[in-house]
Amino acid sequence: MNGNLATELAKLLTPGQVVTVGPEMRAALQDGTGNRGIRGTADALVLPEDSAQVSEVLGWCYEHGVPLTVRGGGTGLAGGAVPDGGVVLSLERLDRILSIDPELWRMNVESGVRTATVHRIALENGLMFPPDPGASEQSTIGGNIATNAGGPHAFRYGVTGSWVTGIEAVVPPGEILTTGGPLRKNVASLDLADLMIGSEGTLGIVTSAWLRLVPAPEERGVVVGFYADTRTGCDAIGMIMGSGIQPTALEFLDRGALESSLGSFPSAAPDEAGFAVIAEADGTAEEVSGAVANLKEAMAEGALLPPATITDHVEIRNFWAWRDGVSIAVTAQRGGKISEDVVVPVESLAEAVEETIEIGRRHDLPACSWGHAGDGNLHSSFLVDLDNADQMRRGGVAAAEIFEMAIRLGGSISGEHGIGSLKTGHVEAALGPVAIRLQAEIKKVFDPKLLLNPGKKILLP
Amino acid sequence: MNGNLATELAKLLTPGQVVTVGPEMRAALQDGTGNRGIRGTADALVLPEDSAQVSEVLGWCYEHGVPLTVRGGGTGLAGGAVPDGGVVLSLERLDRILSIDPELWRMNVESGVRTATVHRIALENGLMFPPDPGASEQSTIGGNIATNAGGPHAFRYGVTGSWVTGIEAVVPPGEILTTGGPLRKNVASLDLADLMIGSEGTLGIVTSAWLRLVPAPEERGVVVGFYADTRTGCDAIGMIMGSGIQPTALEFLDRGALESSLGSFPSAAPDEAGFAVIAEADGTAEEVSGAVANLKEAMAEGALLPPATITDHVEIRNFWAWRDGVSIAVTAQRGGKISEDVVVPVESLAEAVEETIEIGRRHDLPACSWGHAGDGNLHSSFLVDLDNADQMRRGGVAAAEIFEMAIRLGGSISGEHGIGSLKTGHVEAALGPVAIRLQAEIKKVFDPKLLLNPGKKILLP
Repeated sequence: MNGNLATELAKLLTPGQVVTVGPEMRAALQDGTGNRGIRGTADALVLPEDSAQVSEVLGWCYEHGVPLTVRGGGTGLAGGAVPDGGVVLSLERLDRILSIDPELWRMNVESGVRTATVHRIALENGLMFPPDPGASEQSTIGGNIATNAGGPHAFRYGVTGSWVTGIEAVVPPGEILTTGGPLRKNVASLDLADLMIGSEGTLGIVTSAWLRLVPAPEERGVVVGFYADTRTGCDAIGMIMGSGIQPTALEFLDRGALESSLGSFPSAAPDEAGFAVIAEADGTAEEVSGAVANLKEAMAEGALLPPATITDHVEIRNFWAWRDGVSIAVTAQRGGKISEDVVVPVESLAEAVEETIEIGRRHDLPACSWGHAGDGNLHSSFLVDLDNADQMRRGGVAAAEIFEMAIRLGGSISGEHGIGSLKTGHVEAALGPVAIRLQAEIKKVFDPKLLLNPGKKILLP
Repeated sequence: MNGNLATELAKLLTPGQVVTVGPEMRAALQDGTGNRGIRGTADALVLPEDSAQVSEVLGWCYEHGVPLTVRGGGTGLAGGAVPDGGVVLSLERLDRILSIDPELWRMNVESGVRTATVHRIALENGLMFPPDPGASEQSTIGGNIATNAGGPHAFRYGVTGSWVTGIEAVVPPGEILTTGGPLRKNVASLDLADLMIGSEGTLGIVTSAWLRLVPAPEERGVVVGFYADTRTGCDAIGMIMGSGIQPTALEFLDRGALESSLGSFPSAAPDEAGFAVIAEADGTAEEVSGAVANLKEAMAEGALLPPATITDHVEIRNFWAWRDGVSIAVTAQRGGKISEDVVVPVESLAEAVEETIEIGRRHDLPACSWGHAGDGNLHSSFLVDLDNADQMRRGGVAAAEIFEMAIRLGGSISGEHGIGSLKTGHVEAALGPVAIRLQAEIKKVFDPKLLLNPGKKILLP
């Protein structure tokens, strides 16, 4: 039957909405893990234009036993959108802003709307949508919801799920579920929205979402401190958290991450820097000025230079653009990297940063980490040449040791990227048998034929 | 078998942990709905001392097909803890603070710890646990988690679930589930913690929780404005939301609620007040002073007097104690009330407040409302004499019309109290068939014998 799968789907939609060959089809077989050589297979890419068409496609797949992998902006870092046969359903044409109510601090958007578009529209209306995952120009709100994406500002403002008050989703065998809405509180049902948020396309297809917004802060101030080593830098993080200030972001880079990225750093940095701490505050001009002074004081002890401050709007935008580019700068060192986003209790951050280097040393791979210090969320990375099979093999073993480290330290194997296809081998050790059993059974409630994003996130018996 | 149920349970625990008669047993048959004459039945009250004993009791109930209703502080307003036969399991002896890490902004507490104790311990360490449901001296963290409780400060800070990063729970047939932990981000599994939060004891028994804290603000400032009527007051709420300020709380009281409670109001209020708006800001002294000035300006138009400000710590504490007492003051008017906590999109707040009065008029019952204006969450209330059967009957019809109104306005039948036993008749209209089906199937995944808090929250086919 799969031979004429595309023909059958084109009858449901229009021929232009079903693609089987060419660059668009090839792109749909990969996500952000493409640079690690990860590529899936599929019989067709379908491009529905609204939730009714999504329902038609899912209904057809369910009737014919065809697997379906849903796709947002394709920036995922865990292989969550890499298909394993069947249909790839892209939500890129569901890109309408359904409503915006600035005076009520909310908007309703389809899943294919880019994260950066939400940021821009909010800002044009004096508001802010705080979640800021790395690739926000390419990523979509639907993808952010599928992974419960974070970003630097999650430290103060929380992850994507904290800003979603309602969703519309298509669930097998093609029914439309709406849960929540333009409501800031709701305990009428079990929290089905939060269950679908972060489920990586394994339970249903989120087609639109109600987003909560807040008034945009007038000003921001970023303080950067450089330290000789990891321990001294982590002590500064402790000083900040003990100071009574609540930064909006609290980030770090270790020596290797700094060495890769300091060439494009927008201000002066000492050559001997082994660790950087970045803290941001927002609010009115007076609030920022007070918070920045307090942050500088908290970060001064052990710093190589007096901590530097950035308060100019353009410089702050450039600064975060630089920070967003750290991942690419690290990749550029050797052409590739194997990078995992583990989480540890924040008191174990220094240990995790040091152990990342030590694991790299054992496998003869340069290693570094950076990330969301305040959330204990680090991107532990090993530099590799993607064409060097031996390096790739060693990188895989090193990544497995990173997951073991996170579990041993009482942490989690993923803070914001998800499990996708890359980490399913570590889920059993991470979650334990009771959670494994419950989530497998919940998967079957939503998707009894196990057709939605098969092999991803959820371990099935 | 139930004849010797207590004897059997006493063998599992100790005789002093199983109660079948006396005031403690009688109290365990009621919750905060007791003043509406609602009382359940049970064969025994059990008082386990740790999660291992909770597991023993649930295991025994599961083996013998005995229903089990879990109980926190007994302050619930939807009948969620009113048993329907079998065993009542009180978590009051699970009252240990398992750890507090002030410099890491977190604590780990057993479910029986009082909400006010968490508030106090956080504050003693310079931190804040923001959720502040009404009866926090009596309510427990476990009960707050079971209902995903809110409170005035949920407007800025979110409801209980926003502050829980991990739970330990006992799930049928007696297994211990731990999900999350001292981690601020985690996407390793489906969000089982958020699924259990707000599930009102129907999926499992939460025995302890990791709570996230934040640095306590130095200062607070409350601004109170009085208006002639609901529309003018709601216009002021719109002005606040459009002003760029983000208050920590944004509350209202209508004419009836004011008439009941103004006798104990801690400052001057005009006799002709038909609506009050309360906004609070927090932060450093400078931040509060700036925010209060902005709030006063936003609230000035249409106000009967220039909006009043409260910034003294003791006066603010007294003010919130007064606000917390509004429910009791309203009850005192006639000896009883039927009060529902519906939610509407915030632009429909004025309509919902006015329609509450109109519904009361139709059923010849004095009506009023107050609540969390910024969240569109109102406590629509009808004053009744609890011994007057006709008034109680009319009150029940009026409450049903309140639920219909909330659904018609695109809202929800509960914002923070839960569904319990009182609102199950309205769940079908509120949620629609897809959500009803999914949550019934999820219930069966966790509780295949349907013994946990039977008849509550979840509609079963």
